[in-house]
Amino acid sequence: MAHDDNDGSMSLRDAAAQDERATTGQAGATNGNGSLAAVTGDEVFRAHEGGKLITASKIGLDSVRDLSIAYTPGVALVCEAIHDDPEQARKYTWTGNNVAIISDGTAVLGLGDIGPKAALPVMEGKAQLFGRFAGLNGVPIVLDTTDVDELVETIARLAPSFGGINLEDISAPRCFEVEKRLDEALDIPVFHDDQHGTAIVITAGLRNACKLMDRRLEDLRVVISGAGAAGVATTRMLLAAGVTDIVVVDSRGIIHSDREPLNDVKAKLAGLTNPRGLRGSISDALKDADTFIGVSAGHLTGEQVASMADGPFLFSLANPNPEIPQDIAMKYGSIVATGRSDYPNQINNVLAFPGIFKGALNAGATRITKSMKLAAARAIAAVVADELRPDRIIPSPLDPRVAPAVTAAVEVAARNDSTSGAKS
Amino acid sequence: MAHDDNDGSMSLRDAAAQDERATTGQAGATNGNGSLAAVTGDEVFRAHEGGKLITASKIGLDSVRDLSIAYTPGVALVCEAIHDDPEQARKYTWTGNNVAIISDGTAVLGLGDIGPKAALPVMEGKAQLFGRFAGLNGVPIVLDTTDVDELVETIARLAPSFGGINLEDISAPRCFEVEKRLDEALDIPVFHDDQHGTAIVITAGLRNACKLMDRRLEDLRVVISGAGAAGVATTRMLLAAGVTDIVVVDSRGIIHSDREPLNDVKAKLAGLTNPRGLRGSISDALKDADTFIGVSAGHLTGEQVASMADGPFLFSLANPNPEIPQDIAMKYGSIVATGRSDYPNQINNVLAFPGIFKGALNAGATRITKSMKLAAARAIAAVVADELRPDRIIPSPLDPRVAPAVTAAVEVAARNDSTSGAKS
Repeated sequence: MAHDDNDGSMSLRDAAAQDERATTGQAGATNGNGSLAAVTGDEVFRAHEGGKLITASKIGLDSVRDLSIAYTPGVALVCEAIHDDPEQARKYTWTGNNVAIISDGTAVLGLGDIGPKAALPVMEGKAQLFGRFAGLNGVPIVLDTTDVDELVETIARLAPSFGGINLEDISAPRCFEVEKRLDEALDIPVFHDDQHGTAIVITAGLRNACKLMDRRLEDLRVVISGAGAAGVATTRMLLAAGVTDIVVVDSRGIIHSDREPLNDVKAKLAGLTNPRGLRGSISDALKDADTFIGVSAGHLTGEQVASMADGPFLFSLANPNPEIPQDIAMKYGSIVATGRSDYPNQINNVLAFPGIFKGALNAGATRITKSMKLAAARAIAAVVADELRPDRIIPSPLDPRVAPAVTAAVEVAARNDSTSGAKS
Repeated sequence: MAHDDNDGSMSLRDAAAQDERATTGQAGATNGNGSLAAVTGDEVFRAHEGGKLITASKIGLDSVRDLSIAYTPGVALVCEAIHDDPEQARKYTWTGNNVAIISDGTAVLGLGDIGPKAALPVMEGKAQLFGRFAGLNGVPIVLDTTDVDELVETIARLAPSFGGINLEDISAPRCFEVEKRLDEALDIPVFHDDQHGTAIVITAGLRNACKLMDRRLEDLRVVISGAGAAGVATTRMLLAAGVTDIVVVDSRGIIHSDREPLNDVKAKLAGLTNPRGLRGSISDALKDADTFIGVSAGHLTGEQVASMADGPFLFSLANPNPEIPQDIAMKYGSIVATGRSDYPNQINNVLAFPGIFKGALNAGATRITKSMKLAAARAIAAVVADELRPDRIIPSPLDPRVAPAVTAAVEVAARNDSTSGAKS
């Protein structure tokens, strides 16, 4: 199965193969090729003992009086207020500021279908990131079902507990239907991060690459390798951002309307892409292309990269091994981005999802619209717009300017949507 | 519908009727008739703004290195370890120390069926109590369904996210089936607090009442008013604790085997209780009884109480108005307990549930057995066994000795159960 993640994971097999269960992480600077400080497996397991997350009371519970306010009898007043007007829940419960991070464990990092329990450490980590970057309360939920109907009905029943639903690591093509049906059914934001988080950050990076190299999105010939969650969403988002010539390639080659069989999602994709009617393999797609976006496994040769137009933009997001080996990418590309924290230009979803949800919740948005996603991409790009260099087209994941900028931009876009009645 | 809660709630109607939306709570001492300090509605709403609960990271996320340990790539090692051995989830995720507090909002405090959103402030409060008294991470979950099958399947699908399931404020008789089916289906502890929490604390109080007044549980004639969640569970627990003569009364009078129609739960109850074959109303039941336990609405007259045996034990747990007005209870009873925080001997579930779950999780118990519940009741009683007075048969809800004592006792009982293979 294609690997559609770009969140900096290293595959377990690779990790395990390393000496002493050591994984690699970068200490210090987040861009540039700083020296690698080993992160040992022992360190990792120690940090996970007892889990990484806690719940805590915001207020003291030290007297009977405290209990009477937070719990009975006082709480009954708040229950009644919400019963009378359910909108009050956003004000008087933590749903105004919490997000469920929900997975069925079928497409976890590069590990694939490892089941709900094994997926939980990732969801806890994501909850930490929501807190760290946007001050949101993330609640990890892993579900013991992979059936689309069951996922949808289960998540819909849970929904009153939360202000937003971040779907995570659900495999394609089920993820598309799960998100679509929940988005229609619920009155709170639903967002599959593996799709849109990735798409937003790629769009931000590509926007800045164009700016720096004095090119236009409208003129690019883009090849996207991978038609899973990230590939499909990235295609749609780049089209919305103005790109007109995208060729999508999956494990069986170029996607085009005459190819059979295509699932529903890929059939739609075929109708939206490949304006020059290309056929064949990825090699055929790459010839004279300006931009490569890899959101899958697979490996490109130097020859294939050399066949692209001069100075291409190369986004090789497979982890831990980018589709294009870094030395080849650096030789041919004018801009090189990967999913790795130890290379320049890391495409990391954490730039997007905290601010997306914070902005949506601030605005009381009932869904995450296309214009909110585009606003997020523009905001991420804008943070480093005045500092652009080939090795700095995208902010560092730890850049403290990003989440507030995304939050503000998404909030404005949400309010505009709600004014204009836009729905997608 | 009968009101089966005893957790110190005041009914909303009563609360709302008070001046300035003020509710009453007791500041200062938790036993004795201390002066009431007004808790205003404003204070209550202010304390609820933004919700009462947060999630937080246990570890810093300030560098790329931190992210590499808590999130990708390091987290993949933990995912793999759990995938290889799911038991490792208890060690390396927060499920070793978290409890879901799950309600469908159908029997909330004295408010009845107010729905999931309006129930959420109570579940948040309960989560706070889990943290405050046992250091557990409570996660409030409210469900948008009241169908038994849907509740069971939804909660079962959520289960991998949690170390234990505390069911809360689900109305009878559905609550019995929901708990039973989940208890059988899941390998983590499931506990409906409105049933067993109440039963445990009543049992503890009655045990100490007997000790103080030199009587034996085996000799008591007990009348239980209310055959909802708390009434049924209290009946079963007192039988297990040694009481032999219990008469249960519901809104239609004494429950006995010939009465029709009886639902399944009440039919079973009829077979276990009423050894003298009483018929008629609550007045018939009370004649010469030693003990009254009210876990419903309803009001007793002075005459009815006077018809009981001399110096009865009177547990009137309806809130905010006990079944027996406090002045009448004090006149006739040798021991008087209520659900109110401003009267002596408050029967409060918070004495039980934090330590129950903490002990069960510490022991790695897969269910909460009868012997664990009895151990909890004995432990609660033992905390004040050397300080007994008529107005102090049960510890204060804030007594810091309780949760550790319950935890230890439940943990031991769980380990014994698991050794002996006991299953109920």
